Amino acid sequence: MNETALVCLSGGMDSLAALATADINYKLAVLHFDYGQRTGAKEKQCFHEIADWYKIPTELRFHISTNLFKVIGTSCLTDKSIAVPKNDDPHSEDIPVSYVPFRNGNILSAATSIAEAIGATKIFTGFVEEDSSGYPDCREEFVQSFYHAADTGTKPTTHIDIESPVLHMSKGEVVSYASSLNAPLPLTWSCYEKSDIACGLCDSCQLRLLGFTQAGIIDPISYDINIDWNKCIPYDAFK
Amino acid sequence: MNETALVCLSGGMDSLAALATADINYKLAVLHFDYGQRTGAKEKQCFHEIADWYKIPTELRFHISTNLFKVIGTSCLTDKSIAVPKNDDPHSEDIPVSYVPFRNGNILSAATSIAEAIGATKIFTGFVEEDSSGYPDCREEFVQSFYHAADTGTKPTTHIDIESPVLHMSKGEVVSYASSLNAPLPLTWSCYEKSDIACGLCDSCQLRLLGFTQAGIIDPISYDINIDWNKCIPYDAFK
Repeated sequence: MNETALVCLSGGMDSLAALATADINYKLAVLHFDYGQRTGAKEKQCFHEIADWYKIPTELRFHISTNLFKVIGTSCLTDKSIAVPKNDDPHSEDIPVSYVPFRNGNILSAATSIAEAIGATKIFTGFVEEDSSGYPDCREEFVQSFYHAADTGTKPTTHIDIESPVLHMSKGEVVSYASSLNAPLPLTWSCYEKSDIACGLCDSCQLRLLGFTQAGIIDPISYDINIDWNKCIPYDAFK
Repeated sequence: MNETALVCLSGGMDSLAALATADINYKLAVLHFDYGQRTGAKEKQCFHEIADWYKIPTELRFHISTNLFKVIGTSCLTDKSIAVPKNDDPHSEDIPVSYVPFRNGNILSAATSIAEAIGATKIFTGFVEEDSSGYPDCREEFVQSFYHAADTGTKPTTHIDIESPVLHMSKGEVVSYASSLNAPLPLTWSCYEKSDIACGLCDSCQLRLLGFTQAGIIDPISYDINIDWNKCIPYDAFK
């Protein structure tokens, strides 16, 4: 286990599943990308609690912050003048107002810089193509073309693979998979709207709830609305 | 002239030449990327003076700042514990200590986000391949592969070309070309070391001086060392 994997860890379920995968074969380093999202402080807290769980040392936790998306402000995730939509169809073909232009391009660029600097040979992401709310920068085609850009834009001796282990999973499969790896799902956060108790209504909450329902597992976090967990079993049973 | 070009403007000569090119056919927007470089404040001042010269309105001047390179600190440009080399061979094959890992990947990612947000159809860069001190992210192969990554990672309706008009020029050709476009070269800054008077010895100063000498033009900025401008003519002659 000499090789290092840098995992882009948002504090959500998908990137936790990626981290749990990387943990099997690699020494772990983690990157949190603060782009001025509404729930940034909560995400950062989750990032640290998850990093603590995996015993990742402080010097391998990278916090990157940029004012980029605050400056351009075209997404409801960073611009408080745009309302977070509720009860949207999470499988609509339309690109929603929560789209942050080329967010994952910026995250992968920062990850490439860090990976080259620390000598990591892998970048792990929690990108999910099918349930990605229509974001173009979550698709396999994008990840592959970014890999080529990163490979040509770094030193000739630098080769960094990009692994997206949950890319083709449904949200339900992500929950089942993360559970099978004993990943600390209670430490994750998904809500776009709130930081104390999940709203249960935004796109991201709806996808999360769909995932737990599909997996037949009761989500261990609390919601601001009543959820019917009939036929689901507690998460603790998987630990 | 309805289309907008977003120009990555560092405050140096190469990106000024790119800006002067874009000015011929496009409405201008400019991006300054502050990555914690030693001479960041001076670069920002040059950025504004150049933007003033081209009458670019405030709302189309984008200042992006990131802590990325401060956090990883592997370049003499951002890490003050690493000395800026002097009198290096500017055409060495080795990648120098001023290399900032995947810097241009991060700059182009930010530019892609902004261009998509404001509806710009072009990104202009001042990348120079031959005189780029061996940085891998200044080469045409990188720019082309990044273009594909950006095209797949943005909305299906978004198409943003990346133009690098001085990519294959020598530094001397850049100076002659910028002069021919009446670009305000006296407003640019290149020194990696100092912000008041150019050191004349760092990689970047040496390339700049080589460029003016090749072009037969006296550099209008001041240097901390004596320069032999024999056989060169004043820059004002080109205005």
